[in-house]
Amino acid sequence: MNKAMVFKITGIILQIEALLLLLPALVSIIYRESTVWSYLIAAGLAAIFGTLLRFVTKPKNTLIYAKEGLVIVALCWVFMSLFGCLPFIISRDIPNFFNAFFETVSGFTTTGASILTGAQLDAMAKGNLFWRSFTHWIGGMGVLVFVTAVIPNMSDRSIHIIKAEMPGPIVGKLVPKVKDTSRVLYLIYILLTFAQIIFLLCGGLDLFESSVLSFGTAGTGGFAIKSTSIADYSPYIQWVITVFMLIFGINFNLYYLFLIRRFKNALKSEELWVYLSIFAVSTGIITYNVLGSFNGFSEALRHSAFQVSSIMTTTGFSTTDFNLWPALCKTLLIIIMLIGACAGSTAGGFKVSRIIILAKTLKKECQRLIHPRSIRTIKFEGKALDTVTRHSVAAYLAIYVLVLLSVFLLISVDNMSMETNFSATVACFNNIGPGLDGVGPMSCYADYSAFSKIVLSFAMLMGRLEIYPILLAFSLKTWSKK
Amino acid sequence: MNKAMVFKITGIILQIEALLLLLPALVSIIYRESTVWSYLIAAGLAAIFGTLLRFVTKPKNTLIYAKEGLVIVALCWVFMSLFGCLPFIISRDIPNFFNAFFETVSGFTTTGASILTGAQLDAMAKGNLFWRSFTHWIGGMGVLVFVTAVIPNMSDRSIHIIKAEMPGPIVGKLVPKVKDTSRVLYLIYILLTFAQIIFLLCGGLDLFESSVLSFGTAGTGGFAIKSTSIADYSPYIQWVITVFMLIFGINFNLYYLFLIRRFKNALKSEELWVYLSIFAVSTGIITYNVLGSFNGFSEALRHSAFQVSSIMTTTGFSTTDFNLWPALCKTLLIIIMLIGACAGSTAGGFKVSRIIILAKTLKKECQRLIHPRSIRTIKFEGKALDTVTRHSVAAYLAIYVLVLLSVFLLISVDNMSMETNFSATVACFNNIGPGLDGVGPMSCYADYSAFSKIVLSFAMLMGRLEIYPILLAFSLKTWSKK
Repeated sequence: MNKAMVFKITGIILQIEALLLLLPALVSIIYRESTVWSYLIAAGLAAIFGTLLRFVTKPKNTLIYAKEGLVIVALCWVFMSLFGCLPFIISRDIPNFFNAFFETVSGFTTTGASILTGAQLDAMAKGNLFWRSFTHWIGGMGVLVFVTAVIPNMSDRSIHIIKAEMPGPIVGKLVPKVKDTSRVLYLIYILLTFAQIIFLLCGGLDLFESSVLSFGTAGTGGFAIKSTSIADYSPYIQWVITVFMLIFGINFNLYYLFLIRRFKNALKSEELWVYLSIFAVSTGIITYNVLGSFNGFSEALRHSAFQVSSIMTTTGFSTTDFNLWPALCKTLLIIIMLIGACAGSTAGGFKVSRIIILAKTLKKECQRLIHPRSIRTIKFEGKALDTVTRHSVAAYLAIYVLVLLSVFLLISVDNMSMETNFSATVACFNNIGPGLDGVGPMSCYADYSAFSKIVLSFAMLMGRLEIYPILLAFSLKTWSKK
Repeated sequence: MNKAMVFKITGIILQIEALLLLLPALVSIIYRESTVWSYLIAAGLAAIFGTLLRFVTKPKNTLIYAKEGLVIVALCWVFMSLFGCLPFIISRDIPNFFNAFFETVSGFTTTGASILTGAQLDAMAKGNLFWRSFTHWIGGMGVLVFVTAVIPNMSDRSIHIIKAEMPGPIVGKLVPKVKDTSRVLYLIYILLTFAQIIFLLCGGLDLFESSVLSFGTAGTGGFAIKSTSIADYSPYIQWVITVFMLIFGINFNLYYLFLIRRFKNALKSEELWVYLSIFAVSTGIITYNVLGSFNGFSEALRHSAFQVSSIMTTTGFSTTDFNLWPALCKTLLIIIMLIGACAGSTAGGFKVSRIIILAKTLKKECQRLIHPRSIRTIKFEGKALDTVTRHSVAAYLAIYVLVLLSVFLLISVDNMSMETNFSATVACFNNIGPGLDGVGPMSCYADYSAFSKIVLSFAMLMGRLEIYPILLAFSLKTWSKK
């Protein structure tokens, strides 16, 4: 493995994080908060460590293969989280390391699971609130995608990095050059975020609140700045967020197709229609089941649509305590937690496209059982699905279930209720945030032990990076000389 | 599809069931119970309906393909359950149809989930108790395997029936002729059952109790005849059952290898060692965690080993209320519920061999990620795993998860706790029996609605027959003319 190159890029990422840490410092200055020093110290440390990593290592060549891509992404995300949690510790807003690390990983992975109680959140400095939500925005599109967009002399091999960081079974280039692909993606991301900020400003929120909520929506993260999440905002604001969560859960390639005016191609996406159907059907079922708890149909519809959109896109905002809903609604929420949103979006979960591919594989398997010698090709998004993709999706399901059950077992040492442990596992691994029962939307993850917090932090990282990078980076074999 | 042949074999099965129903009639006579009439009526009805089915249909040929095999197995199991539940209804021991059907399906599928409360069970007629446990024994090895063993002029095509009824990813013939394979399997099954009856008789149980408990163990079913399951029996009896549950969870092919003195081959089985390791590790973890609740190590070990053996082999007997154990133990039990025992045994679950194949597939997938062009063959039980088997195992995981989540969602309409619903789903689908919380070992399934009972009944059938037969038999496409 080209270790020198791995460390060099990790160094670059930490230097970039140092720059990013100056933004919350600026916010602190605007609001005259002492947290500015926490951010300057953290930025300084990240810059020093990043520079050291970058210049101590001397890569013999800049070649990056699939393996390097995976390891780079895993290391960068872990280091970013380690340095990103420093301001919380230094400013004493989250003095405990495990809590601060959990909260930062939760931010970068766009999970939105919090160890802060309502009172702690309400007392938090504006600078910290900004950084917390900004990590969502950074993690949403992926910081390495950003690097490949701006660093001048990266070879076209950086596709391996994008592949490792972008979620979904099939990651391709939109345009021939990797760099241009990254730029297009970031451009769309920034434009959509701006659009949401403007819509929220129109709803009467100030710039700080609009930006912070938009960061949380764009990254499909879900950190709010009030202990009641989005419950206290106006119906207009809630609907705007509902729609934008849905928008950020769609494959960004479709927006690119819209940009270059290939509307027909964009609207032909199978994944889009299955995604919207799951949203519509789930909202319908839940609205019907909670009708009695709200004042009329429109309120029930608003809360149902908001919760479904939030859970399905793995954002995790909430407008009501869905932990009190009937069992059917809660089970449905758990299931759409597992499904997640579209590949190539900022959302987590198993991804709708994988579900479609699996469904088609199953259909083929049934046919094979009946007619063992039939040879039929399966199509997805208009193209024939090659066997490698189909099998890698099936293998992904296996490793997904394996990780899910392992995390569920490990955090059970804390002796919480099974509903708490299972929903915490699903909510963290799929980057949603709130779960049910003890980790419901009106509770938090503070009661878990340090051990479980570390386990859940790695579950979040595995969920965001789709498992393999983390497994590979933490396997001894990767680092052995042979 | 050769519908005539499908109906003809279903007819034969019902005739055989009529004969089998005479056994509990005999037991009723011995104990001078009025239930004898229920069994004679049920036997008569099954015989008439079976004879009608058999002679009304005139198959043009006896050809059976994979599709017919799957449909025959599904239809036979459903019809057997429909006629098998009649005695319970007629004798008024279980007057409600949905309850009686649930109980009978639970019997044949060797699940052991019951809708009877402790008081109802203690008041049950001996004839009914015998039939209830005898269904386990019939369902354990499979009634169609029996048919292929005894019916004279079945062509060798009946391998398609055995394949559909025997659990596991790879079903082959032990000996060149299908009929002889079935006979060998049934011979081993009968010998082992007798061995257990003798061991139990030595422990001081009477012949009725020894037989009934052995039927429950041999089929890995789990219906007991006391409301306290196995808790009131002596430690000797508990250990005997622990060991025999483990024995019936092992692939019967290994016993055949033992019979023909190929010990080395038998002991080389990868599945066997993984199976025993899972048992040992789980027992170790649980013993350590429940040490405080029992009088000393040996008692804790006995209860842990019994529960692990019972859950892992999907039997479902219990000697203690494991619902009161710490969260870690309960989560571990849920996970070994999902894994199940060996393929080719009488046990349910996902099967250890599938886990091994998936693990090897994952290892290969990781290598492929790093070295996209590497070509390595995977071996299982000393043979190269062909891609068709690997992919069908991966596809099985997909459909397994799909059915699991669907059942979980459907029974959530009953608004029980999530732990109840989830464990009920897992316990029925994997043919275990007791779950946790509301369906724990000291509770029963009576509180579920008729709708959920039907859903869970089909979950049990899908679990026992490994999903595809039921899906195929209840798909309209199967029956259409085209």
